[in-house]
Amino acid sequence: MINITLPDGAVRQYESGVSPLDIAKSISEGLARKIIAANVNGKTWDATRPITEDAAVKLLKWEDPEGRSTFWHSTAHLMAEAVESLFPGVKFWVGPPVDNGFYYDMDLGDKKITEEDLRALEKKMNELAKQNNPYIRKETPKAEAVAYFTEKGDEYKLDLLQNLEDGNITFYTQGNFTDLCRGPHIPSTGFIKAIKLTNIAGAYWKGDEKNKQLTRLYGISFPSQKELDEYLAMLEEAKKRDHRKLGKELGIYTMDDDVGPGLIMWMPNGTVIIEELEKLAKETEAAAGYKRVVTPHIAKESMYLTSGHLPYYADSMYPPMEMEGEKYYLKSMNCPHHHKIYAAEPKSYRDLPYRVAEYGTVYRYEQSGELFGLMRVRCLHMNDAHIYCTKEQFADEFRAVNDMYLKYFKIFGIDKYVMRLSLHSKEKLGIKYVNEPELWQETEEMVRNVLVESGIPFVEVADEAAFYGPKIDVQIYSVIGREFTLATNQVDFSQPRSFNLTYTKPDNTSDVPLIIHRAPLGTHERFIGFLLEHYAGRLPLWLSPVQVKILPISDKFLPYSKEVFTQLMKAGIRVETDERSEKIGKKIRDAEMGKVPYMLVIGEREMTERKLAIRKNNKTEPEPQTIEEFINLLKEEIAERKG
Amino acid sequence: MINITLPDGAVRQYESGVSPLDIAKSISEGLARKIIAANVNGKTWDATRPITEDAAVKLLKWEDPEGRSTFWHSTAHLMAEAVESLFPGVKFWVGPPVDNGFYYDMDLGDKKITEEDLRALEKKMNELAKQNNPYIRKETPKAEAVAYFTEKGDEYKLDLLQNLEDGNITFYTQGNFTDLCRGPHIPSTGFIKAIKLTNIAGAYWKGDEKNKQLTRLYGISFPSQKELDEYLAMLEEAKKRDHRKLGKELGIYTMDDDVGPGLIMWMPNGTVIIEELEKLAKETEAAAGYKRVVTPHIAKESMYLTSGHLPYYADSMYPPMEMEGEKYYLKSMNCPHHHKIYAAEPKSYRDLPYRVAEYGTVYRYEQSGELFGLMRVRCLHMNDAHIYCTKEQFADEFRAVNDMYLKYFKIFGIDKYVMRLSLHSKEKLGIKYVNEPELWQETEEMVRNVLVESGIPFVEVADEAAFYGPKIDVQIYSVIGREFTLATNQVDFSQPRSFNLTYTKPDNTSDVPLIIHRAPLGTHERFIGFLLEHYAGRLPLWLSPVQVKILPISDKFLPYSKEVFTQLMKAGIRVETDERSEKIGKKIRDAEMGKVPYMLVIGEREMTERKLAIRKNNKTEPEPQTIEEFINLLKEEIAERKG
Repeated sequence: MINITLPDGAVRQYESGVSPLDIAKSISEGLARKIIAANVNGKTWDATRPITEDAAVKLLKWEDPEGRSTFWHSTAHLMAEAVESLFPGVKFWVGPPVDNGFYYDMDLGDKKITEEDLRALEKKMNELAKQNNPYIRKETPKAEAVAYFTEKGDEYKLDLLQNLEDGNITFYTQGNFTDLCRGPHIPSTGFIKAIKLTNIAGAYWKGDEKNKQLTRLYGISFPSQKELDEYLAMLEEAKKRDHRKLGKELGIYTMDDDVGPGLIMWMPNGTVIIEELEKLAKETEAAAGYKRVVTPHIAKESMYLTSGHLPYYADSMYPPMEMEGEKYYLKSMNCPHHHKIYAAEPKSYRDLPYRVAEYGTVYRYEQSGELFGLMRVRCLHMNDAHIYCTKEQFADEFRAVNDMYLKYFKIFGIDKYVMRLSLHSKEKLGIKYVNEPELWQETEEMVRNVLVESGIPFVEVADEAAFYGPKIDVQIYSVIGREFTLATNQVDFSQPRSFNLTYTKPDNTSDVPLIIHRAPLGTHERFIGFLLEHYAGRLPLWLSPVQVKILPISDKFLPYSKEVFTQLMKAGIRVETDERSEKIGKKIRDAEMGKVPYMLVIGEREMTERKLAIRKNNKTEPEPQTIEEFINLLKEEIAERKG
Repeated sequence: MINITLPDGAVRQYESGVSPLDIAKSISEGLARKIIAANVNGKTWDATRPITEDAAVKLLKWEDPEGRSTFWHSTAHLMAEAVESLFPGVKFWVGPPVDNGFYYDMDLGDKKITEEDLRALEKKMNELAKQNNPYIRKETPKAEAVAYFTEKGDEYKLDLLQNLEDGNITFYTQGNFTDLCRGPHIPSTGFIKAIKLTNIAGAYWKGDEKNKQLTRLYGISFPSQKELDEYLAMLEEAKKRDHRKLGKELGIYTMDDDVGPGLIMWMPNGTVIIEELEKLAKETEAAAGYKRVVTPHIAKESMYLTSGHLPYYADSMYPPMEMEGEKYYLKSMNCPHHHKIYAAEPKSYRDLPYRVAEYGTVYRYEQSGELFGLMRVRCLHMNDAHIYCTKEQFADEFRAVNDMYLKYFKIFGIDKYVMRLSLHSKEKLGIKYVNEPELWQETEEMVRNVLVESGIPFVEVADEAAFYGPKIDVQIYSVIGREFTLATNQVDFSQPRSFNLTYTKPDNTSDVPLIIHRAPLGTHERFIGFLLEHYAGRLPLWLSPVQVKILPISDKFLPYSKEVFTQLMKAGIRVETDERSEKIGKKIRDAEMGKVPYMLVIGEREMTERKLAIRKNNKTEPEPQTIEEFINLLKEEIAERKG
């Protein structure tokens, strides 16, 4: 008998060899029908694979991110089976799950897959899925595996094998398809009820452009047709809300070849949004006791050797500028500069928590192929701050930061969010993570406790921490359900030591503070990209670049329009007048294209009665208002940052 | 007879050979006593040197910058005479006038000049000055000059001669000292009534550290003892007001070896000043119809080849970062990015003037030895904007920019200022300046006209323009009379062409706009440095990092102090409480050290009567006030930005 510990802490006894599916069945048949994989002692596991020792077991459904990954990974194998049957002789490289679905890289020899082929492949996959073939795991000695692929003449799988340790290799087979694969997989193909192949792309073998170009086939799958339909509808909606399309239409940002890829230039309308966001951050942070600083965008190599950015983060940095025998780097993070500010004047316990905020601009190297609109860029304006505090102050400070996130979520109508607690990996201490095993454990525990106490939903992920401590990645969802990684909230026990940061305690001895790195509004780039999608470009009044557009029906009404304009402008409203000699219908349509929240159509009646006919979000409001009433209404809506 | 045109336009006839001094005498003996040099047809000229052709003549007094330069240059020769008499065998390199006085570089062989020697040298110089020896100009063929210095064994003067064109060389002699010198000089040493040798420094020959180190002797001189005394008093005052000293004491900024020389990190108190200045600029610019943008700090080489920064400005730029086969440069100016914003959307005449503003951060290379506190730095936050306009709009736009300068001068109590119109040099077209002789003439004329019409005091200087057009450097004077170069205002007819910037005219044809580059508040670095000196650190309320300091007399009054603190903070006042268990006298002294404008001493009476005892600028105000009254008073003072 072995002891199985379930996530709620319950321990049940089973015979050795029990599978996660058996465990599910022992709880309920209904549950068992939904189980597609499991997590056993921290490792993802086939639902049908025997467990032979005491274990912590979490049963995984489609709803679990790990479950979904497994589902898509299995669908990638199903796609490979379909490809092999329609394109005999194809050779496969790798086929992993990704954020939204899966892909498989393949060498089709002289053949090509076209858009029409995708439909045929989907049809074939649906047939194979209906066969409900089980995914069968098999362990084989490495030598046998090598012999198998040598005979087959499959140089790709042989290359993969080369990099695997000696010992047993696993294969998975479903139907007529066998693949070298670490697994795990879902129990059988019947779980896959709806499939969409989404894209054909080229991909150099191993990402190296000197190598042969393979075909990369993308797809996504679901456990029901309804979910696929919803997903496709969401994609359609997301296309309309595409921040790159809206960003251009609304004059938010531009890019230029002479400036460089991933380097956003914020146009006047985008800059209004930036300034409103910064104002919000400054007000919020001032009320929370932050002080602001301004630091340069460069520093010497020695700074980044001290901070550990060199070597831990070098791949994400721009190359150095060499001058006067020194190397200068563009900063990829603001922290080292803030540490220098902390250290510039001696600190006592009375000065802590010392909270230093800056909307800092940092530069990070992302591969050109990874750049994407405002979502993946090389220059980031970050709502950054660092909190230097004692261990005793840590929990309160960390909780206050989480509260700030929640406050912002409310302002922006973000109802769905998940925090992702990223932990270190023991194996990579000293390589990817600073080598302080005890501090890692202590701080990870502190962060976990605050999250649990706050009742904030979170998931834990190993081997995703910052190099200097555990972090929380905050994932938010737009109104159409798309996920965005917004911001991070990190603990740092390493840099305060490297920078010799200290404070004097009441007993006159000296101690080292902890640091919280936090950026609740993330970067302007990603957050404004998110907002454009979230609001479909129709930003709330307080964020709108143009808040009111005055539309005189003809030139006759220009003088009165000017009067209204001046009063609104003096009241601090962002107002424009459409002075063109166009028909009023055209003026309204153009203002609507620009997603202007309020339009004022000015004609005979408005001028005579000195009242304003108001269109809000392109719908006529019932009651005309005086200018004073209208200004008060706007001011209130702006002051409250109504959504 | 020749025609002499005086600055007021009057033309007088004199015999050929007349000297500027003769002309002065012909006007009045009183005037003649004050004339120390002249400007003849644009060249500085000895007061005693004959004029042999028609000429425009400006007589120069000590009050004229050119006159003062000549005065100091002549004093440098006087110092050399004194050094030669006390340190026989000394060899001289060059001895120019500088902003405040003069220096001479010399090779003293094995000897050294000490601080005591300076006093002896001053004494000797005073003796020689009293002899009232004339400065005598002599022209000699170059061959003779070479022979003279070869015999003397003076390798320095021989080196200078080598770089002079063949033909006649000028020498100047006063008393026992003869020097190779282009001149001009004052009539005689008697004009020099007060001398102060200020500093001994080392300077590598020709500024190259591989060369021998020479001794550089600095001094300053005046036409009366009173002026010297005033200058020394001003220096003493400037020392107390030194922005580096105040910057540290008041927690304004810091620098760090790991960040790099000339790279300012703004501490929380400095950042408050920055944010208030930016707020002022944003308000002012919004009211003047500017739009704001935000652009990255880097761009590709191709951008700066187009703009002409490469090659014209390359020496002032940081070296490139090489990545993906491209060179990226830190921007040294914001203009090219702004041009790209202009070009991002097609423009019509309706869009002009198009005014694009950004508090942009630029990076400029200055030699380490030139760096000085906030005055010479490598990272500059610039109150930048570019105005794209038609030729017809130019005068109005340029005038509006000048008005903005004057508005700012009023806010900051800057009573004395001069605008310096920097023109191109015909000889350097295509080298230092874009090769467009007609456009240079046209735009220089346009700028001159606006200045003359506005009645703003200005001087003209050749060969100091930007490479793309004429510019105005604005010089301001702090309350203690020190001069600062604040900002520039430039015309640009070159970059709009290089960047293919156009707009559509009403007749549907296309034209190229002019650009005005302007930065009325200059850079944060220099302007805040100026403000610290100007206000001796005692900033006006609206700029003060801490506006009110609450000083409870003892711990008993902490709760009431907290109440006052909260009300002030909620009203948006920057307030701090001194909660230490120190005596009230010490608390007041410390708040005064921090130059806090308002202190509130809280004791028994204040708590009981619920009124505030106010100290303003460290003086007790007669009437206690309620919190509400005090808040209203502060709000008004802040809103009006009282000086």
